[in-house]
Amino acid sequence: MAATAGETTGPRLVLEPGELAHVERPTFLVDRERVERNLEAMQARARAAGARLRPHVKTHRSLAVGRWLRERGIDAVAVSSLEMAAYFAGDGWRDVTVAIPFNPRERARALDLARRIRLGVTVDSAAAVAALAGPPPVPAGVWIEIDTGPGRSGVPAGSPERVLDLAGRIAAAGLRPVGLLAHEGRTYRAGSVAEIRSLHAAAVAALEDLRGRLAAAGHPVVVSLGDTPACSLVEDLSGPDELRPGNFVFYDLMQLRLGACRGEDLAAAVACPVIGRYPERGLIVLHGGSVHLGSEAVPGPGGEPCHGLLARWDGRRWLGPDPAAPVVSLSQEHGVVSLPPADLERARIGGLALVLPVHACLAADRHRGYLDLAARPLDAM
Amino acid sequence: MAATAGETTGPRLVLEPGELAHVERPTFLVDRERVERNLEAMQARARAAGARLRPHVKTHRSLAVGRWLRERGIDAVAVSSLEMAAYFAGDGWRDVTVAIPFNPRERARALDLARRIRLGVTVDSAAAVAALAGPPPVPAGVWIEIDTGPGRSGVPAGSPERVLDLAGRIAAAGLRPVGLLAHEGRTYRAGSVAEIRSLHAAAVAALEDLRGRLAAAGHPVVVSLGDTPACSLVEDLSGPDELRPGNFVFYDLMQLRLGACRGEDLAAAVACPVIGRYPERGLIVLHGGSVHLGSEAVPGPGGEPCHGLLARWDGRRWLGPDPAAPVVSLSQEHGVVSLPPADLERARIGGLALVLPVHACLAADRHRGYLDLAARPLDAM
Repeated sequence: MAATAGETTGPRLVLEPGELAHVERPTFLVDRERVERNLEAMQARARAAGARLRPHVKTHRSLAVGRWLRERGIDAVAVSSLEMAAYFAGDGWRDVTVAIPFNPRERARALDLARRIRLGVTVDSAAAVAALAGPPPVPAGVWIEIDTGPGRSGVPAGSPERVLDLAGRIAAAGLRPVGLLAHEGRTYRAGSVAEIRSLHAAAVAALEDLRGRLAAAGHPVVVSLGDTPACSLVEDLSGPDELRPGNFVFYDLMQLRLGACRGEDLAAAVACPVIGRYPERGLIVLHGGSVHLGSEAVPGPGGEPCHGLLARWDGRRWLGPDPAAPVVSLSQEHGVVSLPPADLERARIGGLALVLPVHACLAADRHRGYLDLAARPLDAM
Repeated sequence: MAATAGETTGPRLVLEPGELAHVERPTFLVDRERVERNLEAMQARARAAGARLRPHVKTHRSLAVGRWLRERGIDAVAVSSLEMAAYFAGDGWRDVTVAIPFNPRERARALDLARRIRLGVTVDSAAAVAALAGPPPVPAGVWIEIDTGPGRSGVPAGSPERVLDLAGRIAAAGLRPVGLLAHEGRTYRAGSVAEIRSLHAAAVAALEDLRGRLAAAGHPVVVSLGDTPACSLVEDLSGPDELRPGNFVFYDLMQLRLGACRGEDLAAAVACPVIGRYPERGLIVLHGGSVHLGSEAVPGPGGEPCHGLLARWDGRRWLGPDPAAPVVSLSQEHGVVSLPPADLERARIGGLALVLPVHACLAADRHRGYLDLAARPLDAM
């Protein structure tokens, strides 16, 4: 007979067919207690630094999770598209920054939204400023994106004359300049905690230098910076007026590998039914592929790609990741998992495995909604 | 002034801000004429082989595209989840095979659907047969999945005794045995056309051997096989009773690299607004990241990862991929594209780039709907 939830014989890597029976197909699960704990810790870090916490909600894209933020006193968020800004505005968010360069094709939508909420938009070019200028001008706060080194978007921090020129154009166009915004994305690929701290310190210094130059030219601005590795690992976060980490609400194996969180902080898992069992190869196959987990990988113990790690279930929640149970390969809908012999012996077709994702933001993006541990549905955009 | 659609100065890599103005954000576009042509060619190949074409609709997940199939006389499809089977059943499809091992957690849903349509389910274990057996039994046709070598799911082709045992269990349980089903997924990673043909021939031979053994034991079955590389490249597809390619409706850069299609067959592109322009680095940045394109890569000319190639637009449709315009890096929402100097010079913020995806199935999966070239919306599950 299948065990019922709560009946355990020690934490197991594969649940019985009768456990969590409401999970019938690949399902993104959220452990609210851990989300709250991660939030509380990040709020304390921001408070200690005297900075506003403006979480980047692209990680979860969920109004339900957004409400947990709001209940903790958070009243401003960052998003990665105008569509996401409108989604959150629809749930009462009144201070939303679109932290990606303004897309002139969405001018009419931006105009509409900026008339209803305190919308922030981001620019790194005169062309984007011109598109915002109108007529009529989009009544949004305008952030100048600074490239502190990653080489993606933004005005290079080493070109202050271009930053000053943009600030002048924003003011001349009758737009409302707000500040300098940067994302030091290289921290995600850093090789050590020291490197993360050093990248963050350099980004802060570059932004402070630009802030000083702008102030001297009559453009007082605030500074917004933030990524989960640095916001989790830098001892003194003071400097920026606001911090914009996103991933920290869930964390994931990438963050764990960087040292940005502990195994017990991982607040999201993808529950995947066991659909195949192959003892001769030491493997099980899950209904759970790249369309449920994302395609990303972290290096396994031997350098081989690891697309997720299973977590043991104690009857109430999952524990930390088990390095002995990696997702060794993925196709579109299948995930192949290596299991220790004792766990493989007990695993059954119709059982359930809890996969801790490599990159929670991309795994979450594959799901149109989540469940919390009490089986309550949570929306996702 | 922005050029209007139709006014061209030769095919361009980046459209003007005023062209395709209805495309405001990253949008998956489908060229129906090419889909029809790809379908027609695959139908001709199946017909020549005397096989039924049962397209795998996980590539597009679209009832609208499904109707194009049906208008061409196709009346059976394969899907990768029971949820997808129900979605297509809702649009009148009456012969749907779920080509992934049966998940006992979905037994109630399978029972319901099998009472309404000709549902096919797939098994590779006695446990799955037992779950289907009930009571009451799920009145579905049961396919035995055979692993012809990829080592994902399926009974190994080299274990005929296990195949015979499963066939016996299916019959004993009062279920309806249908056939042997395999997916020779190694063709996607093959190094040459010859290797694809050889993999396919070996799979066909293994399945025919098993078919003979089952017939001798009183279990007459049909054979279902198929993947886009082999179905596109094998000269004589005869043998299997049905062929199950999926990707061929759109094709993509992976298939182009394998030689399975031509550049002008690529029937899907992701239109992405230009949000950054960096002449000093030879780059533009698109609103179009891994949440719009998928994270997959093919090797570029120097072996570097290429996450997509831009196509030139002739004012009516896109042409083939331009190797000089690769997506060189992706983050969640941003795509960084290298452009030739002349194209970079003309590219404008608010312009539009058409990215041919590496793996169309995974790119399509990131979108909840598509547009055809006449801006008509197409659903996606």
